[in-house]
Amino acid sequence: MTKVRVHTISISLDGFMSGPDQNIDAPIGRGGHVLHEWIFETRAARELHAQAGGAEGADSDLLRAGFENVGATIIGRNMFGPVRGDWTEPLWNGWWGEDPPFHHPVFVLTHHPRESLVMAGGTTFHFVTDGADAALEMVKEAAGDGDIIVGGGASTIQQFLRSRAIDELHFAVVPIFLGAGERLFDDLDGAMDHYQCVGTTPSKRVTHYRWARVDAAL
Amino acid sequence: MTKVRVHTISISLDGFMSGPDQNIDAPIGRGGHVLHEWIFETRAARELHAQAGGAEGADSDLLRAGFENVGATIIGRNMFGPVRGDWTEPLWNGWWGEDPPFHHPVFVLTHHPRESLVMAGGTTFHFVTDGADAALEMVKEAAGDGDIIVGGGASTIQQFLRSRAIDELHFAVVPIFLGAGERLFDDLDGAMDHYQCVGTTPSKRVTHYRWARVDAAL
Repeated sequence: MTKVRVHTISISLDGFMSGPDQNIDAPIGRGGHVLHEWIFETRAARELHAQAGGAEGADSDLLRAGFENVGATIIGRNMFGPVRGDWTEPLWNGWWGEDPPFHHPVFVLTHHPRESLVMAGGTTFHFVTDGADAALEMVKEAAGDGDIIVGGGASTIQQFLRSRAIDELHFAVVPIFLGAGERLFDDLDGAMDHYQCVGTTPSKRVTHYRWARVDAAL
Repeated sequence: MTKVRVHTISISLDGFMSGPDQNIDAPIGRGGHVLHEWIFETRAARELHAQAGGAEGADSDLLRAGFENVGATIIGRNMFGPVRGDWTEPLWNGWWGEDPPFHHPVFVLTHHPRESLVMAGGTTFHFVTDGADAALEMVKEAAGDGDIIVGGGASTIQQFLRSRAIDELHFAVVPIFLGAGERLFDDLDGAMDHYQCVGTTPSKRVTHYRWARVDAAL
């Protein structure tokens, strides 16, 4: 059965999934890039970029599992780019260059309509202005038999946790402090009471946690 | 050399060291007692209470190490009790009964003067109204060759992290969510940039982190 999943979200020991002062030169905020260093050292990440090397192990296994069987992704607009308000020329086409690493449809939640954007490698960005619930229906249709990934940022994940749309959540606690930024686990109105821990996996670099919605885990 | 230490602070995955709605029936706030369950299952905790049983292992070892060579403790008033404002009869004598588990001088930061309170088993509570810096000087004198423990709560630890008074910090991340309460790592004005991770120890129940001030670790 198709699942709605969050995977490979890295948070600091003070709970931030991005640092302060996000901008075009610092898409994950000041210091935020350090959150993702463990990813780039895995064999799984190198494979995604058709590169040699990288280490096998728990980090790589969990990363690889997260990317398996994905049919579509949904993200917030701030994760798509630094542009706010109306789309203006030159149009922002995402952080990821001509061939984004998704290779499937990506739905961007926004208040500002825009034509769908076809990129190389099978990634198409669709811009959805009908709100999160309507977007989730479109994403489910587009995903077919594949899973749906809620890709971020923090407020988009929180929205879908509050509505219990998310079945599974995998995140990694990285032993750093960012001091400020966007917290993943905030403004949840008790949503996590409906989830349970289904796995804790320490690795040399981080500690992985997997949580599942209580009814989803039965 | 004598050290100023924080040890055995338990925080949830969303960063809280106590739950919401702290009161006389829920000294660690709603749900907060779950943060400490791992402690009571250790051999070291049973020893402290002169009880049999309890499990050996990383949890027990780190707990035991935290309690070794302590000369004095400093805590905030809210950790001493639920009383706010002036001390009124019947006087509150702490959460810990007639024989508190400290067995050394404990300095309570407060704005409201009060006579020192001698308990059984070597614990004396002193009430310090001259502020955190003055209190720390008194605690250092009282500690002699022993270490000084900053016992909490969150705002007291934050205060001594901001002033870099703390040399070492040991905390455990417990795989639960509390949703609200007091966060340990908040309002730190970048203080943690002056600390570095000196150990990460996963156990079956929690993940332990040890941090040290950069100059203290050299």
